[in-house]
Amino acid sequence: MTQTNLKNSVGVVSPQRAHFPEPLYLESGEVLDGFELIYETYGELSADGSNAVLVCHALSGNHHAAGFHSESDTKPGWWDTVIGPGKPIDTNRFFVVCPNNIGGCDGSTGPSSLCEATGEPWGSHFPQVTVADWVETQKRLAEHLNIQHWAAVIGGSLGGMQALEWSVRYPDWVSHCVAIAAAPGLTAQNIAFNEIARQAIFSDPEWHDGNYLEADSNPAQGMALARMVGHLTYMSADKMTDRFGRELRQGSFDPQDDEEPVFQVESYLRYQGSQFVSRFDANTYVLMTRALDRFDLSARGQGDLTEALRDASAEFLIISFSSDWRFAPSRSQEMANALLSAEKRVTYSDIESDAGHDAFLLDDANYLALFSAWMGRVAT
Amino acid sequence: MTQTNLKNSVGVVSPQRAHFPEPLYLESGEVLDGFELIYETYGELSADGSNAVLVCHALSGNHHAAGFHSESDTKPGWWDTVIGPGKPIDTNRFFVVCPNNIGGCDGSTGPSSLCEATGEPWGSHFPQVTVADWVETQKRLAEHLNIQHWAAVIGGSLGGMQALEWSVRYPDWVSHCVAIAAAPGLTAQNIAFNEIARQAIFSDPEWHDGNYLEADSNPAQGMALARMVGHLTYMSADKMTDRFGRELRQGSFDPQDDEEPVFQVESYLRYQGSQFVSRFDANTYVLMTRALDRFDLSARGQGDLTEALRDASAEFLIISFSSDWRFAPSRSQEMANALLSAEKRVTYSDIESDAGHDAFLLDDANYLALFSAWMGRVAT
Repeated sequence: MTQTNLKNSVGVVSPQRAHFPEPLYLESGEVLDGFELIYETYGELSADGSNAVLVCHALSGNHHAAGFHSESDTKPGWWDTVIGPGKPIDTNRFFVVCPNNIGGCDGSTGPSSLCEATGEPWGSHFPQVTVADWVETQKRLAEHLNIQHWAAVIGGSLGGMQALEWSVRYPDWVSHCVAIAAAPGLTAQNIAFNEIARQAIFSDPEWHDGNYLEADSNPAQGMALARMVGHLTYMSADKMTDRFGRELRQGSFDPQDDEEPVFQVESYLRYQGSQFVSRFDANTYVLMTRALDRFDLSARGQGDLTEALRDASAEFLIISFSSDWRFAPSRSQEMANALLSAEKRVTYSDIESDAGHDAFLLDDANYLALFSAWMGRVAT
Repeated sequence: MTQTNLKNSVGVVSPQRAHFPEPLYLESGEVLDGFELIYETYGELSADGSNAVLVCHALSGNHHAAGFHSESDTKPGWWDTVIGPGKPIDTNRFFVVCPNNIGGCDGSTGPSSLCEATGEPWGSHFPQVTVADWVETQKRLAEHLNIQHWAAVIGGSLGGMQALEWSVRYPDWVSHCVAIAAAPGLTAQNIAFNEIARQAIFSDPEWHDGNYLEADSNPAQGMALARMVGHLTYMSADKMTDRFGRELRQGSFDPQDDEEPVFQVESYLRYQGSQFVSRFDANTYVLMTRALDRFDLSARGQGDLTEALRDASAEFLIISFSSDWRFAPSRSQEMANALLSAEKRVTYSDIESDAGHDAFLLDDANYLALFSAWMGRVAT
């Protein structure tokens, strides 16, 4: 945490925990006998509770969306560009809540937690959860915090899917809904990329059918490979060309070791894979990609997206990024069109960017200006 | 082979072999003490040798480009849509030569061949070969067949790169050059996809540092995963949506086994991966992707593609496909522009297609009509 970092920062924050002893009936039909959520909050809840904003995280995100965990911490939360005093989600106005979702690996109940019944980590026995299940847990957290209404529910990518689900599942709770770089459901291509990531994990001999913690092992190579696939698809081809081009790592085509990377881009991708392994759990990765695959907003309307959105009462902000080919602008346009057909109030913008899917996390002036202006209209 | 299949077919063909005892000096500086090529030919070489056409194969291709291997064979060669009587590469007019490249796994000298010096399969000790090395071997094959000139050198994808290399390396040999769904060099994104495929293979415990044949094993899971990555990137997102959408495999989200595929597209992709394993060698896959990565036509012009093409004397046909995102139309356009700048004769067409990179192998009426018309101008 430096003086520069502290500009418009929420400062040092501490995660909190809440235990929910009541059973959670999952969409799959399975039941979770209670669960725990780790979460962070930024800003102050107003006396009438009218300024609460829920931020939902994406595949590899968690509850630490903004600020720093200590005075010496140099890495802010994952959406620090967006959350803070004077930022789009302005903590001078809003009380922001961001939980780690169940099934996650950063403190909320998930596959790496101990299962009370067995005394062992859940591992592969943790049930598959869905976007709708997360909405249920987030609602319990809201009630725990004496919140009865969200001024806004906001998310990017898989987080945007949660915001959309909130808007139709609990319309009375949500007056504003922001879905960024999201989609009403994955395409076949997207499911295929997720499947490759899962196969990479399943193929690792350290996977042990998902019970690697019990076996005191870790499918690190499979996870690194899965992350490489993901990371590559979150970038745009043009950005990669600008950043790496055909630059060689050592100025030569012939490394000492046949398996060494030759091009800079290979080296970069391997590094991204290896870094991820140390902070993420393989079962969570599998679970999150499956939750992504299964999300299908149109199912609520028997395949008709307009019909599925009929009951929503929120005002919507839909944002896409021009170079995002994993969650293409056409999918956001599809959402915006369906919202218009359903006679909802919607603002849609496709932001010109070369940063691909990752753009939703980055500091892009046009994006942040639009987001700020729109949030300025959210009454509290 | 059925009556329908025989329409415009070259019929039953037999691969031939040629041994080249002279050492081959590779671009890497390594030397191969002789090599063998397996190849097929279709049509008749004219008395003056003026009608010879070289067809170069892509990553997973081989020498069997057209016709059938027996009366009962039901699967024709990989470019049977393009090669045959009355087809774009008309065997009534042309004598077509198609070798399996060295480093391959279908009969030419490669990593799965026995190394004479050791009596063991080459495995990881097989030297890295390049597009230029292949051109050298193809030239030796031409000389072996009493060919001193190619009426045309033709290829798609990595095959197109070989055709381009021929045009600048041996300009006097090549009067027509056809590069389809190719590029003057890979982008960073393309290299990254190849690197993921290689990492999938390297991560397989059966890989044994490339010496799996000696160890009597096979990195089948890694290869299947590598092929899944490749196959997915050769298809367009729209085609996948049309073909698979979000269709479930068993009508349910909950398969018996946690690792079973849920969506049709997952099942399809796994099948493609598993099929490939039985017919391809992992070291060859690694070698071919590296040859792709390293090809850089502009290097001949110190980074200036126009300069690199200065010496070519061929007439060029450059074809791309609108939905090919692995070898995007913009890369073919770049080739066409550089050829124009270098004052070469060039025809460029971007074919409207939803079939992605794979389109170059498929039966598309506009593509085949253009290709036929252009080849009709090739004097023999």
